[in-house]
Amino acid sequence: MRQYKGEEKRSAVDVTIDRLLQYLQDQGLGDGDRLPNERDLCVLLEVGRSTLREALQRLAARNVLEVRRGVGVFVSYKHGVAEDPLGLTLIRDKERLARDLLEFRIMIEPQMAAMAAQHATAEEIAELEYLCGAVDDLIRAGKPHLEMDKEFHTRIARCSGNIIMPKLLPIIHGAIGVFIEETGGQLREETMRTHRAVLNAIRARDSVAASDAMYLHLIYNRDRIRPDSILLGGSYSK
Amino acid sequence: MRQYKGEEKRSAVDVTIDRLLQYLQDQGLGDGDRLPNERDLCVLLEVGRSTLREALQRLAARNVLEVRRGVGVFVSYKHGVAEDPLGLTLIRDKERLARDLLEFRIMIEPQMAAMAAQHATAEEIAELEYLCGAVDDLIRAGKPHLEMDKEFHTRIARCSGNIIMPKLLPIIHGAIGVFIEETGGQLREETMRTHRAVLNAIRARDSVAASDAMYLHLIYNRDRIRPDSILLGGSYSK
Repeated sequence: MRQYKGEEKRSAVDVTIDRLLQYLQDQGLGDGDRLPNERDLCVLLEVGRSTLREALQRLAARNVLEVRRGVGVFVSYKHGVAEDPLGLTLIRDKERLARDLLEFRIMIEPQMAAMAAQHATAEEIAELEYLCGAVDDLIRAGKPHLEMDKEFHTRIARCSGNIIMPKLLPIIHGAIGVFIEETGGQLREETMRTHRAVLNAIRARDSVAASDAMYLHLIYNRDRIRPDSILLGGSYSK
Repeated sequence: MRQYKGEEKRSAVDVTIDRLLQYLQDQGLGDGDRLPNERDLCVLLEVGRSTLREALQRLAARNVLEVRRGVGVFVSYKHGVAEDPLGLTLIRDKERLARDLLEFRIMIEPQMAAMAAQHATAEEIAELEYLCGAVDDLIRAGKPHLEMDKEFHTRIARCSGNIIMPKLLPIIHGAIGVFIEETGGQLREETMRTHRAVLNAIRARDSVAASDAMYLHLIYNRDRIRPDSILLGGSYSK
């Protein structure tokens, strides 16, 4: 393949990946859009067939593209967000993972809720209201509420107005999953009350209260995995 | 392939990936360790050769494994952290990306510096000292300091004691890269002073000062990309 300035030291596949990404941008291709067929792409990108295929596979593995066999190549709806993007499934110490993920969530989610109180549209608030109620219903019915719970937090991330936040969702999801395993699904009452308080504060455009409520929600969770939990009668005396 | 309880609804490749990850954990395999050959893996995991190969390729694409042709399969040194894990290269509005990445960094890096002041070992502080000086030298020599700058922030993340922080490095790296492009490499004096202040506060075990210095460092950066920058004589009056 012909290489251009700045491409000299890279493998043909890496160069092809860059050209493909540039092509998507230049053509303004987004969610679900179809790419030209392989032969045309080879011509457009000035690369050979096997290099192109390898590049397509690599971008599919990164969830940027979706290769449907016998149908064509499409822009993935997953927006290039990798499965387990931080390699959390590889961490062996699950207790520490749960603790550190909560620490991380405490660093970002209260602020995220405060931003949502500034930026959420009326339509988004109605969606949050629906999701909050749906989590409550599942908890009251004693059914698994994890997925819906994720969706509630995810939606708040989208309301924050920051484009990084909703991309961090896979990490946050991981956090909730690991945590719920650790605590065996406790904190049902506290979850309902604090979720509702976050929602009410966002609706009232009260950033401080939204941050406080989210903080309280997460602190309940963190307390619960401490050996000397206040909620369980301890006092962090150790 | 034989499927077990909980595996029923998933593709053979997905099941194989899970079994491989479990195998790595059970065997305690880490950085650079070699996996058994394909034939043995097929027996161990009870899967066919082509399914195994596809699973290995997928885990290689996720930087969990490294497949060296003709040599063998190894655990990757990249710890499963994906290239561009949040798909940031796909975001077209680079100005907004720079702004939102800085907003995100302001949410986590001051706290990260405060934690580093609590947890850094004497050896780690010596490393930070070296990196801080190396960035200064490059800036004074008018040479590119981006890579070394990343390394300084990265090392502080490792000192925080939270296992998520150093895994967030690829995102932070992206942030610094995009930002430096946006501002055309300004802020050299401010970078030297605020980096040094972060280092000194960590050395003095002063969490509050470490957080303040990092905050100031990032606020300088954010100010600089505002149209009405205070550093450039404006006053956010617009």
